[in-house]
Amino acid sequence: MNYNQIFDAAISRLHAEGRYRVFIDILRNKGAYPNARCFAGHNGPKPITVWCSNDYLAMGQHPKVIAAMEEALHDVGAGSGGTRNIGGNTHYHIQLEEELADLHGKEGALLFTSGYVSNDATLSTLAKVLPGCVIFSDALNHASMIAGIRNSGAEKKVFRHNDVEHLEQLLAETDPSVPKLIAFESVYSMDGDIAPIHEICDLAEKYNALTYIDEVHAVGMYGPRGGGITDRDEAAHRIDIIEGTLGKAFGVMGGYIAADKRIIDVIRSYAPGFIFTTSLSPVLVAGVLASVRHLKQSSVEREGQQAAAAMLKSLMREAGLPVMNSTTHIVPLMVGDPVKAKAISDILLAEYGVYVQPINFPTVPRGTERLRFTPGPQHTEEMMVELTKALVEIWERMELRLAA
Amino acid sequence: MNYNQIFDAAISRLHAEGRYRVFIDILRNKGAYPNARCFAGHNGPKPITVWCSNDYLAMGQHPKVIAAMEEALHDVGAGSGGTRNIGGNTHYHIQLEEELADLHGKEGALLFTSGYVSNDATLSTLAKVLPGCVIFSDALNHASMIAGIRNSGAEKKVFRHNDVEHLEQLLAETDPSVPKLIAFESVYSMDGDIAPIHEICDLAEKYNALTYIDEVHAVGMYGPRGGGITDRDEAAHRIDIIEGTLGKAFGVMGGYIAADKRIIDVIRSYAPGFIFTTSLSPVLVAGVLASVRHLKQSSVEREGQQAAAAMLKSLMREAGLPVMNSTTHIVPLMVGDPVKAKAISDILLAEYGVYVQPINFPTVPRGTERLRFTPGPQHTEEMMVELTKALVEIWERMELRLAA
Ligand SMILES: Cc1ncc(COP(=O)(O)O)c(C=O)c1O
Ligand SMILES: Cc1ncc(COP(=O)(O)O)c(C=O)c1O
Repeated sequence: MNYNQIFDAAISRLHAEGRYRVFIDILRNKGAYPNARCFAGHNGPKPITVWCSNDYLAMGQHPKVIAAMEEALHDVGAGSGGTRNIGGNTHYHIQLEEELADLHGKEGALLFTSGYVSNDATLSTLAKVLPGCVIFSDALNHASMIAGIRNSGAEKKVFRHNDVEHLEQLLAETDPSVPKLIAFESVYSMDGDIAPIHEICDLAEKYNALTYIDEVHAVGMYGPRGGGITDRDEAAHRIDIIEGTLGKAFGVMGGYIAADKRIIDVIRSYAPGFIFTTSLSPVLVAGVLASVRHLKQSSVEREGQQAAAAMLKSLMREAGLPVMNSTTHIVPLMVGDPVKAKAISDILLAEYGVYVQPINFPTVPRGTERLRFTPGPQHTEEMMVELTKALVEIWERMELRLAA
Repeated sequence: MNYNQIFDAAISRLHAEGRYRVFIDILRNKGAYPNARCFAGHNGPKPITVWCSNDYLAMGQHPKVIAAMEEALHDVGAGSGGTRNIGGNTHYHIQLEEELADLHGKEGALLFTSGYVSNDATLSTLAKVLPGCVIFSDALNHASMIAGIRNSGAEKKVFRHNDVEHLEQLLAETDPSVPKLIAFESVYSMDGDIAPIHEICDLAEKYNALTYIDEVHAVGMYGPRGGGITDRDEAAHRIDIIEGTLGKAFGVMGGYIAADKRIIDVIRSYAPGFIFTTSLSPVLVAGVLASVRHLKQSSVEREGQQAAAAMLKSLMREAGLPVMNSTTHIVPLMVGDPVKAKAISDILLAEYGVYVQPINFPTVPRGTERLRFTPGPQHTEEMMVELTKALVEIWERMELRLAA
């Protein structure tokens, strides 16, 4: 038994597949987003443009958010000092849960330390509370949902991505008397497509299944008040549990679910991942409160972001770059090889000051490695034209195929 | 299949056992800790004294921590905007990992969104990377370690709490050729006792097992630089993986492991709970950096806290209150019944403005329900004398037994 040999072998596999990850060392410049400083290698910080942040609307830089966090920092201090039950429940937490419940038109909401934990804790607990539960899971569900489903120990049936016929087939062949839960996302963040929510809800009603939707890449971004795709498509009342993050469009950190009071109370009372952990810092919670309230009554950021995404997609398409068929704010560019995806990303950073991370397995399936751009309201047309030119130059240099 | 009935039944069970949890609605007053405001019930906020915070050293209120967070807030903004791999790695994260590695004399460290996630993600991933691994787990290990071990799917052997003979027996009966991991805590936070670390390490060497220690309630608190019990007892070099939180003595939020570079790289590369989640807000990370650096060179807070704990224990003991046999900074008072523990806590809050949460199942075994006090450097002797008097009065009122 040589532990070091086993660990070395595990790391060697990653190098061999060209998917060993190196984290880039950067600091964003507040007030000048998407500009940042990169600390990699040579001669101190160097300016770069960030093209792959999930702070989609730059709310992490919004004056209201910063002011709210500063106030909380001075009013109550840095951390909560305890779990929600023991010393770590603050007035901010209660207010934010009310705000999020209202955002989704639900009776209650529950905060977690992250979106990952909200998926993992809720799904694993739900299936344990419902004996014999079968979970129907979209094939492209996020790693955190997969973790929750695995950790629940429940039987899982995977339906082909966004394929309602396949879902119905699986529902129909399952014992009508057992509890059922359909778990899926609204916006799939690596492809940029959207689930057929109403059709899935029709099936849930027909087969008496609960519905669980991950709106992590849609909250703040879609719907008149930023309630997500379920807000835009008026489907929220048909979904039992809506899950979201506070770390992407809302610009801070944390996660939550919104549902009726009964379900919230069950998860609050039974989920170890909720119970046995220091609650979110009140400073973060205060920032999110400001962010959610702002995006409930302002659509400027959403509209700016959609316009930027549309422009970048069309510039890339015109240039013959293999931009994928996204119907949302995500702009994925297919490469199809982990080593090439990393090489393109390295050249962009070193020669063009453009920061975009290669997306490799296990984040996407092997053979579909890609670059994923998230232009925001602060990315100018000039930046996009330059980016497109750079990509075309690299595509030619590396003898990759352009369409035109 | 009526889902609501099942959910209602789950909640009713908690009410029936007297362990349905009601979160108290408070805000701490920065600069005046342990004072806080309570929003429960009647006539607006009312002043209370907090006796159950895990911000043991009041670092969440320390001017250096507040100043560092304010600076980061203005320098880079609220959230990190991405996972560590995609957009969410900042210079602060890298610096803090270096600082924590140094704190424990290890080659590397890795940040997680919480101590819970660091335990869950690391233990579940380690056991998957080591095929056939058997995990030896202390009977009183924290829920987050239990979750990680369960989620790993590895075989688990539970040894009686702090019982090295039992541990040896289990090690000896296990196939010498399979990978082994001993997982335990240093300070057990609900009892306040300490693991026999060196003896466990002796066994690990004898049976070629890896060692994993949870120092969540000890980092910042013990050892000349606040490296925990492994720092105080000069045992850090004998432990393979040291795990800690940033949300208790360090006063902010987050978790980490420290280990050799190889292990850090394996967890960094393979743990879904690390990979697929927005990284810690740089504001939090900056605050922790200041906190860790301060506690590395200042022992005033540690000494003040130890003195306060010793005083409260001796006051309670003199008054005949059933204070448990803690050898650390934790002051647990045995009640042995969930309904009574809750009643005492309610009276303390309503009549005395004292906030201490009852500790019920599943946090502690049934029949050992207790109150758990965490006096800090800011709790005065006067406060402690008053608290003890209040407890004696309630003990008599409720006809509970006093020793003297
Ligand atoms: C679809 C999806 N769900 C959940 C998460 C986890 O959310 P968080 O980053 O808040 O942990 C992510 C990404 O991080 C995600 O892409
Ligand atoms: C022993 C132990 N380990 C881990 C944790 C989890 O740490 P965190 O609160 O940072 O999630 C806790 C308490 O919360 C704990 O008591």
